[in-house]
This record gives sequence, structure tokens and C-alpha cells, in this order.
Amino acid sequence: MNEFDIIARFFAPLAGDGAFGLKDDAALLPQRPGHDLIVTTDAISEGIDFFAFDPPGTIARKALRVNLSDLAAKGAEPAGYLLNLSLPHDVPVEWLGEFSSALAGEQKEFGLPLLGGDTGATEGPTCVAVTAFGFLPAGKMVKRSGARAGDGVYVTGTMGDSGGGLSILKSETHTLPDAERDYLVGRYRVPCPPVDFAPRLRDIAHASIDISDGLIADLGHVASASSVRITVEGEKVPLSPALRMLWGEGALLRAVVAGDDYQIAFTAPAGLTGPFTQIGQVVAGKGVTLSVDGKEIAIPRPGYRHF
Amino acid sequence: MNEFDIIARFFAPLAGDGAFGLKDDAALLPQRPGHDLIVTTDAISEGIDFFAFDPPGTIARKALRVNLSDLAAKGAEPAGYLLNLSLPHDVPVEWLGEFSSALAGEQKEFGLPLLGGDTGATEGPTCVAVTAFGFLPAGKMVKRSGARAGDGVYVTGTMGDSGGGLSILKSETHTLPDAERDYLVGRYRVPCPPVDFAPRLRDIAHASIDISDGLIADLGHVASASSVRITVEGEKVPLSPALRMLWGEGALLRAVVAGDDYQIAFTAPAGLTGPFTQIGQVVAGKGVTLSVDGKEIAIPRPGYRHF
Repeated sequence: MNEFDIIARFFAPLAGDGAFGLKDDAALLPQRPGHDLIVTTDAISEGIDFFAFDPPGTIARKALRVNLSDLAAKGAEPAGYLLNLSLPHDVPVEWLGEFSSALAGEQKEFGLPLLGGDTGATEGPTCVAVTAFGFLPAGKMVKRSGARAGDGVYVTGTMGDSGGGLSILKSETHTLPDAERDYLVGRYRVPCPPVDFAPRLRDIAHASIDISDGLIADLGHVASASSVRITVEGEKVPLSPALRMLWGEGALLRAVVAGDDYQIAFTAPAGLTGPFTQIGQVVAGKGVTLSVDGKEIAIPRPGYRHF
Repeated sequence: MNEFDIIARFFAPLAGDGAFGLKDDAALLPQRPGHDLIVTTDAISEGIDFFAFDPPGTIARKALRVNLSDLAAKGAEPAGYLLNLSLPHDVPVEWLGEFSSALAGEQKEFGLPLLGGDTGATEGPTCVAVTAFGFLPAGKMVKRSGARAGDGVYVTGTMGDSGGGLSILKSETHTLPDAERDYLVGRYRVPCPPVDFAPRLRDIAHASIDISDGLIADLGHVASASSVRITVEGEKVPLSPALRMLWGEGALLRAVVAGDDYQIAFTAPAGLTGPFTQIGQVVAGKGVTLSVDGKEIAIPRPGYRHF
């Protein structure tokens, strides 16, 4: 199979309006009057973001979702994506079939079409890069830089589950029942960014970020961009029962520096309720502090570094 | 240096409006009323599209230009780009410096800012993927599918120079003077897509494609998308003096299947003049035929295949 056959068989069926069946040099993304276009790109690589033995379907879903996470954190709704694939020369047909079927499912779930891409062979690790497009009402993008003293600090979902799943796949000793093991591994393989939360987020949030480097590191980005200090009350950080079983007493300190959560951390007026948890406050100053039961504790080492 | 330091030092200075200094999760691409947004993405990989020993600056320029070529072929003017980098863990500071300086020069030459991206480390070959954005007046995109019987077939520039340069870098024996050698190698390393030609192209062309797989293969894409036959008169195909020196009698047949030209092939009413050359006609039927002095000749093997 050459690259044209691969595109025609596996990816052209995923193409939406403006993609011209993936048979043109470029795609046309229809504009939406009164809206801003948000663009983001993230790649996932074998050996870093997924394992060679991971199911092709989970690799596809992760590649797309790490980008949907960025859109959601800005308050944007998905509108389409581009796909750059670097694959082994001898990529099996079955791999491509499972990979593209999973994308079809994701497109249906999240309401976005494939608009184009690029497929090439590599001697190195498999790499999947996605560029995602989203729209939001003009002027409503939630930036990292809008946090103000007095805001509450909130997160969606639970922290550290993906990190727990990764530690299991890296052979950390554990005695978890299958359900808890599978839950954590599932979160590493297929993150669940709160895509549906975007419209409410853009109405309430002053600042927002997707949690990919680790909670503390990402709150640090918000603090820096907003010139404020963020204080986190460790006992309020939501942890899943499965992660508590896996990591026990150490769960909090490992969870706040684990990467790959793909949940949203945001600041907004204090005291709000909804599908999120308040974990701290924005105050004057700079940096991030972590306390447990009123006692400040040292921030653990930061998250994953590429270089 | 970690990835944040790399971004802050080398890439943040390249960021334009809507990129928020590369310090946010996503970029905002301002919409342009009355225009369509064109998006395209192409990656270049070490060992396939460039050599590890190529200057970092030419790698940067090629990565960007192979995408500007797609925009130009659709009649769009560049508006911004995203950059996905997969780099060795020990990438030298000097490499990054030369790479980003070259991008700065390109941005100035072609009038487009960096909007965002993703930087990761890889154990495999260096890979640079660019996603480029362009605008054109609404409804004016030139597709592959608009060729009609009676059109002339035109190309910009000269064919096969990049292929000639590649053959030299792959140690093909030659006796070229330095000027000719450098010209051809330069075309392989840094293509020169006719970006300024886009506004005229969209006014005259019925169908258009950027020549990346090789002239015959790419005209085949146009013929297929438009359900027409394209006849090429070999003696009219423009070849550079340097390529004729390098390949002599065989130049035409090698040039029409050499990839990486990043010029534009288009169809438009016959008999037009401008910065392009008419090389053939569109007729009823399908496929591409090549003749020399009125005699049809067999089409050589097609261009590069990844899989």
C-alpha cells in the first residue's frame, strides 16, 4: 500500500466539508461570523506519550483528545482537525484499520471532522500530531493571564490518574483489583477532557489552562502569566479512589506533579459550584504554594521534561 | 535547557498577534470578513526530506516553504503557521539558534507570524511539521477538480531541479561547476514556491496543484479530480540550464518524475502569458500522456513513495 492508498482507504472516509475528500492540497475551514477561531497543536510519540504495545485505537483517541483538552480549556468548541502521521514503513493494515475506526468514533462523539493531514514513513518511533480548530463567541477566549487576587482556583475531574496508569504500565508493584487497574491505565491511554464544559467555562472563568505538565506546573504557568500567587490546599485536591488505593499516603504529592491529566484548572470568583472542585485561592505575589491542613509543604519535583 | 526554555529563548520572539507569546494553550487566529481560511499541513523528516548534515537554516526554510507552496497553489496568501518539532534530546543550542533565525527571515519575507506549536524530544529522526494558514477572497480557492477540456496546462518555474540537487547529495557522479551544483542543491534544500503568484493564479486558474510528488504524478491528481485527460508536450517542459548540464539527454524524463519541486501546475484558458510556461492541454478522457516532438512516450516510474 502506498500513502495514497492508505489515505483513500482509511482516512478519506473521515473527511468533512472543506476537506475535499483529502484529495486537494489544502482544506477550507468555513469561518463563523461573530466567532473567534482557536487553533492548537500537540503531538504524541511512541515511548513518551504512549507505548508501542498500546492498542492503535487508544493512540488515536489520545492524539485527538490532548488537543480537545486545549480547546476546552480556552472555552472553545471543536470544529475540525488535521492529522500528521509518522508511521513505520511496514505499518500493518490492521493497525491502520483500528486507528482510523477509533478516530471515526471520536469524531462522532465530539462533533468534529478530519480536514486534512500528512502521512509519512519513519525509521523512528511512531508519532501522531494533531492540529485542532475550535470556535467561541468573539472575545470570549479564556487565557492563562486573567487570574486576579481573590479568585478561587478550581479543577475539573480528578488529578494524577493518568500518572497512576503510567506507573502501572511501567511495572510499579501494586495489588489493585482489575477494575481499579483498568480505570487508571485507561486514563493514561485515553484522557477524558471536559469538552462539554467549554461553554460554561468561558462564562465564569478569568483564567484557564489544561493540565498536561502536572497540576502544580500548570498552575505555575497561570500564576506567571497573570502575575499572581496561587495557593493550593492539598486536602481539597480531588483524587480518585483507584489512585488512593494505588499510591496510598503518597497519592497527593505524586498526583500534583503527574502529567497527562488533560483536565482543566481555572480561576473564577470564589464559591462557585458545578462539575469542578475548588482547591485553592489566587492571592497577590508570585508562584504556587501547596499546603496540607494549613501547613505549607515543599513542592515535589516538577513534571516530565523533554530535554 | 528544558522545553520551556527552548520555547522562550528561540521561538517566543517569532510569535505574532494571537499567539500570546507562545505562553497559552492555544492561539487565536483573527478571522478576515469576506475571506475563506485555507489550512494545510506537511512534515519534513531527516533522511527523507533533508539530511542530518543540512544546515539548520535550510531545514527550517524547507519546512515552512513546502506548506507555503500548498497555500500558493490554492491562491491563498500566508497568514500564520504552527510548528511541531521532534528533536534529539541533545539538540545543540547552535542548531536551535540557526533554525529559529532562519524562520525569522522567512516570516519577514513572506509576511506570516508563528502562532504556536509543540516541541518534543525523539529517539528517532528529527521531524519538523508545519501547519500553515492562508486567506483568499471567499469562494476563490483554486481546487484540483476544476480542469476542463480545452484548458491549457501551465507550470511555474523549472522542473526537476530539486531532484537534481538530491542526486548530487546522494553522490551521483557529475562534472558541474560550483555555481550549477550549488543552484541545484539549493533548490533541494530550499524550494522557492511562487508565493507572490497566488493572487493572479486565483483569477486565471481553473485547477491547480503544487508539484511535490513529481510533475506527472501531480498532473495525474488533477486529471483524476477533474475527470479529464492531460497531455504534456515534453519539449515545452521548462528545465534549468544546470539540470540539463547534470542530466543531459535524460533530463526531461528524470525531471518529470522528480519530486520536491514546489512549483505550481495549473490549468487555465489556453494561450495566456505570464511568469509561467504552457506545457500541454486538457482534453476529454483520463490520465496523463507525455509526448516529445509529437510522439507519445512511456511515462517513467512515478515519484517517491513512503510505504
